[in-house]
Amino acid sequence: MIVVLTGGTGGAKLVQGLRHEVPPDDLTVIVNTGDDIDWWGLHVSPDIDSILYALADQLSLERGWGVENDSFRCLERMKYFGQPDWFSLGDLDLATHLARTALLRSGEPLSAVTAELAAKLGVRARVLPMSDDRVATMLDTTHGTLNFQEYFVRERHQVDVRAVRFEGADHARPAAGVVESIKTADAVILAPSNPVTSIGPILAVPGIREALRHTDAPVAAVSPIVGGNAVSGPAGLLMKRKGWPSTIAGVAQAYEDFLDLLVVDLEDHADADHLREGGLHVLCANTIMKSLEDKQELARFTLHAALQARGVKS
Amino acid sequence: MIVVLTGGTGGAKLVQGLRHEVPPDDLTVIVNTGDDIDWWGLHVSPDIDSILYALADQLSLERGWGVENDSFRCLERMKYFGQPDWFSLGDLDLATHLARTALLRSGEPLSAVTAELAAKLGVRARVLPMSDDRVATMLDTTHGTLNFQEYFVRERHQVDVRAVRFEGADHARPAAGVVESIKTADAVILAPSNPVTSIGPILAVPGIREALRHTDAPVAAVSPIVGGNAVSGPAGLLMKRKGWPSTIAGVAQAYEDFLDLLVVDLEDHADADHLREGGLHVLCANTIMKSLEDKQELARFTLHAALQARGVKS
Repeated sequence: MIVVLTGGTGGAKLVQGLRHEVPPDDLTVIVNTGDDIDWWGLHVSPDIDSILYALADQLSLERGWGVENDSFRCLERMKYFGQPDWFSLGDLDLATHLARTALLRSGEPLSAVTAELAAKLGVRARVLPMSDDRVATMLDTTHGTLNFQEYFVRERHQVDVRAVRFEGADHARPAAGVVESIKTADAVILAPSNPVTSIGPILAVPGIREALRHTDAPVAAVSPIVGGNAVSGPAGLLMKRKGWPSTIAGVAQAYEDFLDLLVVDLEDHADADHLREGGLHVLCANTIMKSLEDKQELARFTLHAALQARGVKS
Repeated sequence: MIVVLTGGTGGAKLVQGLRHEVPPDDLTVIVNTGDDIDWWGLHVSPDIDSILYALADQLSLERGWGVENDSFRCLERMKYFGQPDWFSLGDLDLATHLARTALLRSGEPLSAVTAELAAKLGVRARVLPMSDDRVATMLDTTHGTLNFQEYFVRERHQVDVRAVRFEGADHARPAAGVVESIKTADAVILAPSNPVTSIGPILAVPGIREALRHTDAPVAAVSPIVGGNAVSGPAGLLMKRKGWPSTIAGVAQAYEDFLDLLVVDLEDHADADHLREGGLHVLCANTIMKSLEDKQELARFTLHAALQARGVKS
């Protein structure tokens, strides 16, 4: 069993690759829900949706989020009604949130709802929210306290962040299957997602970080930082705020208590040498995933490296 | 001030005509909310929406409900997710329900929400729900107890009805402005809507029927029954169940305690003579509204007849 921990954008790209490299019954994806948002009264789980759409081969490649060939007529009309419109939901995408919200209101936990949506989408890989309990990534900024979507989408991450908190994390329990799948995995892969706001919330749920520390499976991460900057988004700035350099060394530091293998971009080969001197197993690959071929190659490379590390670890 | 009591389909047609005959500031439309439904977790008010769209010149003429040029992509997707799909909401229409539901959840009464939606749609006529309190038209049928939409849309009114009830009506209060507008109107017009399930719920709200009985304004009704049958829908059958014939005499009977004037179709001229013998003021016109011209002509005819009756009544 291959277990992936992931957020949305960059992680979804790797998952798109992995879906071609791992039989679906052998793939478990544990997804960040810290940036879930109540939008128009609906429960939106952006990262879960990106992963579901990626695994269903319905993710918009053009946008990197939402359903391919979606339209935005309802959104335009909401704007016309003076309703908030800075968070874009497509007409097809909307059905996911309407269905999820209806199922949650009927009393099902998010993990069961996610499994049901996955089944309807024809997704056979197991997609697990990190927790069925509500954890909200909140950012204390110079413009007040914002939830993740307010910070990331509304403010386009152009406000200065003083601190990142995961509200509710202290009392959250990992969703059923999360800890077990990490413990019994053949390999665990941390997708190239933001270490602070995508992987961070997952690690903040009590029990998950411990499972990563104690699993016999090799734990590999693909660096979302290339050449000292995030491939996309504010990972670099947020890492600095946490006291980690916005380099592959910072990524290694974020995961230092459980990481066995770091896959970094070819561009970072010099920094990779330094990291190796510190004893970490570091491999270089092309980590910029433009084409489906790039995604598959990186997925294959990471998977093989992780499975080989298993031999070394045990 | 002209006050109209109405349901959706047939009533919306007359309102489309009236909007060309009455200055918007002189028009108040009191709308049935007995067939409101909770659908996909959203508060849908089908009759209010038909009236708002009619007044905004956005009502689909082809369908008779919903927004013109709407699409149904979200609905198709809900079906794909195994969610109920027998009640059709278009992608543009959906925004009305999302906005309404959000505003209701923020604590605004339905009348204020309706006023806000009307303003956004550029509707200057006053559109009032019959009540801010929940009244639900329930039908006891051979297939169990159904709400109005289950009966009308899901079962296509093909089940036998034993009784019609208006749940919550006993304790409902008329929305602000409803009783006052009837009391101070120059004329009150009951649209050619189903007397049992469209006008019936309005009359079941304590205080509204009394206001109609005691207003100085003439009260006119346009018959939804032509030649012994409803122009559309199950009005005939439901009237029989109430003990009223499904004729213009039945319509007169439904409204007998307050009706001053009944407008019936030319086809019913013989029956009209009989009714006149009973002392009711009855006028014949073309009541089948196919074109906008038909709608305007019937609106104009009814309006003038009602205003003339004012002289007779006072």
